[in-house]
Amino acid sequence: MEWGGDADAMPDEFSLIERLFDPLAGLEGLGLKDDAAVFEPRAGYDLVFTKDAIAEGRHYLPGDPADTVAKKLLRVNLSDLAAKGATPRGYLLFCAWSGDTSLDWMQAFADGLKEDQSKFGLALWGGDTIRAVGPSVFSLTAIGEVPSGQMVTRSGAAVGDDLWVTGAIGDAALGLLAAQGKYGAVEQGDRDYLISRYRIPQPPVAFGRELRGIASAALDLSDGLLGDLEHLCSASQVGARLNRAAIPLSTAFTACLASSEEFWRLVYGGGDDYQILFAAPPEHQERIVDLARAVDVQVSCIGRLTKDQDIVVLDEAGHPVEAALAGFTHF
Amino acid sequence: MEWGGDADAMPDEFSLIERLFDPLAGLEGLGLKDDAAVFEPRAGYDLVFTKDAIAEGRHYLPGDPADTVAKKLLRVNLSDLAAKGATPRGYLLFCAWSGDTSLDWMQAFADGLKEDQSKFGLALWGGDTIRAVGPSVFSLTAIGEVPSGQMVTRSGAAVGDDLWVTGAIGDAALGLLAAQGKYGAVEQGDRDYLISRYRIPQPPVAFGRELRGIASAALDLSDGLLGDLEHLCSASQVGARLNRAAIPLSTAFTACLASSEEFWRLVYGGGDDYQILFAAPPEHQERIVDLARAVDVQVSCIGRLTKDQDIVVLDEAGHPVEAALAGFTHF
Repeated sequence: MEWGGDADAMPDEFSLIERLFDPLAGLEGLGLKDDAAVFEPRAGYDLVFTKDAIAEGRHYLPGDPADTVAKKLLRVNLSDLAAKGATPRGYLLFCAWSGDTSLDWMQAFADGLKEDQSKFGLALWGGDTIRAVGPSVFSLTAIGEVPSGQMVTRSGAAVGDDLWVTGAIGDAALGLLAAQGKYGAVEQGDRDYLISRYRIPQPPVAFGRELRGIASAALDLSDGLLGDLEHLCSASQVGARLNRAAIPLSTAFTACLASSEEFWRLVYGGGDDYQILFAAPPEHQERIVDLARAVDVQVSCIGRLTKDQDIVVLDEAGHPVEAALAGFTHF
Repeated sequence: MEWGGDADAMPDEFSLIERLFDPLAGLEGLGLKDDAAVFEPRAGYDLVFTKDAIAEGRHYLPGDPADTVAKKLLRVNLSDLAAKGATPRGYLLFCAWSGDTSLDWMQAFADGLKEDQSKFGLALWGGDTIRAVGPSVFSLTAIGEVPSGQMVTRSGAAVGDDLWVTGAIGDAALGLLAAQGKYGAVEQGDRDYLISRYRIPQPPVAFGRELRGIASAALDLSDGLLGDLEHLCSASQVGARLNRAAIPLSTAFTACLASSEEFWRLVYGGGDDYQILFAAPPEHQERIVDLARAVDVQVSCIGRLTKDQDIVVLDEAGHPVEAALAGFTHF
């Protein structure tokens, strides 16, 4: 591990690491001064591991504020833990800083991580940093825990289960267009909201924990609603009927849709939402709504799982939307 | 996690991931088809986490064979686990492939990982891949286990402990010079040996496990002998006297030293050895030699820890080598 393995990466890397990352280290990280972290698992719990990376120019924009980049990195991993019903515990961090990354930027990045650690209840256990030859790249391994045998998988859904989604869909994808100046027809307030949704995902971590024993299958929405639904259906060997009118959209997104039906494609396949898509038997409907209300998370029942192994999107009149599926499913 | 989160990264990334990495996945990885891996910890064991990255042009050379790059990536992490007395269990992998990486190269990379997984007894639990804008970068999180409370730290060494090192020192650093054509005065056989030591570290994983309860402190040699010794001394609040004549050198390295005393600097600070430097009370001497013999690992007692918090290298006549410390210690 050796934080600061590259002697030539920075003027004085050991003290830089001390300054940036020591304040983030959990007890398991041994002050980031050993080769490894050590964790004593709790009896009766499984550990859940996930690893997602973000790269400059691909998952975030070069001008994005450092603290939002850090939060996005952490949250794209926390959304995986949330979808698995896991409680976050720790993470290991890899930073390949581009050559022009300033100390101020790094400090703001570390500060962003620190804020989110407190918010979500986990700590830094270790990592590695280097100077990148090209743009910055960050990778993070997040570790969570679930009571033994209770991790929510993608593969447990059954025919007849309701299909649910948290949050609002499409905002992050529209926010990216807005940030790139490719979508200008929005009010400033809507624009700021959408860009913030692209920059800082809002994974429902507390709600995810509550889904243990309720959701039959779940995953986080990263590739886009229909693409990820396909993953769930494929793993569970079911199909799905989606009611388009039930898909939760923000007022900013709805305003955009009023300008062109074209934007539905961002709902179907935009990606980057980092909300949870999950299936649950119909008898849990009331409980799900109550649980979501308790942690102030928006939850919507958007369809039902079917025996036919395909995905059908129905419009407001109950007619299949052919265009919805083009390019998003591989059935 | 979502192996293949980047739809545009490769022609058909999901099937590529299936082809390359499914054969490497352990049960915990759920066939790499879920968002996360799940691991059931064994009662009575702590988990040890480490994370090291390697980058093209920095930790390996652009022309290095793919299987050796993969093995180096895994082994620079396994050496950390070995130094902590941990038994490897699983790993998560991040690949940022440079744009010109061919499918053949990727396949050879995966094959290299597969070979080493079998050799060292661990399996792939998950990861993430993207296309890099610049040169390739790989990061790996390795997870091992130790009986509860028995991880070997850097900080447990005491005054009077012997100082030991596994393997031979300096070969990797000299191998890098040879691979770069900066050191030509060696026979072909020596040259091949040295380059192989640079490309494929030989961490003493089985021996590391045996050090639990014997070593008072340990770390892997990645930054160079004196730099890493300083880490151990600093964490344990001791100093060290090193006998230069006792430092283990290969015949290839010895041949090189005969040409110029200058090469001692590679012994002191060359780095990349990925052997274990450890301290142990003198009463364990015989046991250590026996354990090393049992797993066919070279082990050498190279000095002793002292009350004076500095590091002194003594030459063959018992005189301090002043030059040895320049640039390598921060005391």
